[in-house]
Amino acid sequence: MSNEQKIAAVHKYIEAFSNADMNLIKEIYADNAVVEDPVGSEPYVGIDAIIGFYEGAFATGAKLELSGNVRCAGNAAAFPFKVLMEGVDISPIDVFEFNDAGKVVSMKAYWG
Amino acid sequence: MSNEQKIAAVHKYIEAFSNADMNLIKEIYADNAVVEDPVGSEPYVGIDAIIGFYEGAFATGAKLELSGNVRCAGNAAAFPFKVLMEGVDISPIDVFEFNDAGKVVSMKAYWG
Repeated sequence: MSNEQKIAAVHKYIEAFSNADMNLIKEIYADNAVVEDPVGSEPYVGIDAIIGFYEGAFATGAKLELSGNVRCAGNAAAFPFKVLMEGVDISPIDVFEFNDAGKVVSMKAYWG
Repeated sequence: MSNEQKIAAVHKYIEAFSNADMNLIKEIYADNAVVEDPVGSEPYVGIDAIIGFYEGAFATGAKLELSGNVRCAGNAAAFPFKVLMEGVDISPIDVFEFNDAGKVVSMKAYWG
């Protein structure tokens, strides 16, 4: 997977979240993916649990905006972003790990 | 380990690197730590291998400068920084994982 493809996947993710587009979320994640958001909390294992997580997140009306470059390394990408939401000031760093098919198999969120 | 302690450890690391201070590096890392820099390359396993890695890094004369907030989550911290070195423009994100004793057991570097 090229760095360009990883960067494109991150942009797709920011768009999917900001538009509450669950179909795009399903496209991005592998069926067996694991989401730990924030790191240290109980992980969401598998696409069904992940969809549940994003249903809750989308209900907040929050949008995301990249706040720096996407850093690519090996099978992974790390990216800083802002959560745009009334009364909230969170600027996490997320780390994606991709499988050979270009799907995200692991997402970890490090909160600000 | 509090977030303040994690943030202090990151600042200590930036200082250790910038001053080529190997004693401080030894203080930060656990004996059984693993460093993967960049992610996707062969990891340095154990403190001796890690010291070898930093000897090489220090020899370049590079210094580091934080370029954003340290994000803490669970037993981990993620932080963006710039590598200050003639002719080099790298702005990685590093992720530290700490053990219960407050030592870094895993470092992963996501390059810009």
